[in-house]
Amino acid sequence: MFARRPILHCRECGATVVYRLPDDGDTHPRAVCTRCATVHYENPLMVVGTVPVLGERVLLCQRNIEPRRGLWTLPAGFMELDETTAQGAARETDEEAGAQIEMGPLFTLLNVTQVGQVHLYYRATLLSDAFDPGHETMQARLFTEDEIPWEQLAFRTVRRTLECYFADRRTGRFGFHCMDLS
Amino acid sequence: MFARRPILHCRECGATVVYRLPDDGDTHPRAVCTRCATVHYENPLMVVGTVPVLGERVLLCQRNIEPRRGLWTLPAGFMELDETTAQGAARETDEEAGAQIEMGPLFTLLNVTQVGQVHLYYRATLLSDAFDPGHETMQARLFTEDEIPWEQLAFRTVRRTLECYFADRRTGRFGFHCMDLS
Repeated sequence: MFARRPILHCRECGATVVYRLPDDGDTHPRAVCTRCATVHYENPLMVVGTVPVLGERVLLCQRNIEPRRGLWTLPAGFMELDETTAQGAARETDEEAGAQIEMGPLFTLLNVTQVGQVHLYYRATLLSDAFDPGHETMQARLFTEDEIPWEQLAFRTVRRTLECYFADRRTGRFGFHCMDLS
Repeated sequence: MFARRPILHCRECGATVVYRLPDDGDTHPRAVCTRCATVHYENPLMVVGTVPVLGERVLLCQRNIEPRRGLWTLPAGFMELDETTAQGAARETDEEAGAQIEMGPLFTLLNVTQVGQVHLYYRATLLSDAFDPGHETMQARLFTEDEIPWEQLAFRTVRRTLECYFADRRTGRFGFHCMDLS
């Protein structure tokens, strides 16, 4: 989850590009090919994940990869082209935690404009406490609210989603929450 | 809103790419540079728009550009890097309709896996019935439910969002709706 590197070469013909306003009335500078004039658009990325819950406890994964190796996260990752948002969230939960879940409703949408990302978290119910994390995860563990390692969370979107989750649980009514993190 | 063209050249060095599994355990084939080994990820795009309402009527725009030139749409377009989802929806409403709005809550999230897109529509209240559409729009017009040109809508996501809007309005309670259109 990094900031973007500028495009240097055209994906169609390999020539160099320059960032400029295209000729079609577009208001944003784009990477335009100096040879074939192809315009390259750069758009926000979606990160999809879950809040996997078993009774009073929430599943977190300790990251085994950069960035934020060693810190804790909800299972989440970049959405792929061949899946829906919920399918992507389920895939990441399987890849990062090896957890069996029943998918619930969309719970948070968080704009992270600084890095050009939109994060979506679904609520999910764990079907067992047996996990089989992949290579991206050191360990997958269940935490009660009191046990959450708030100072060792990997991403602000994880913190905000967990805060919403426990706040809603206290009221007994889960909503859908949209937030902008700048 | 087209299907994707494959990447032919590396954005870092301009050499040709091949689609293959990267060496890092990734499970998806990616465009990998044959010279510098840069891995190019391709991810879904977000389309953001509004359901602009004035009393009983909804604002639609007649498209002046391909695809679907001449057909009717809610104001919407690709989200940009420097904005939130709601800011993008407001920008598109301004660009395509020149409409003054007060932004409301997120109303629909529609997965369109076939084209690798996720569409988000916000409810919005029109502050006047004066519009000033840009070059992408032939005309911007208000429609009652009975007047909606159902057979001349540009996109399925527009149809589904309008269907949800009028259904919710009949119940007097607006929800948030997630749908998968394949």
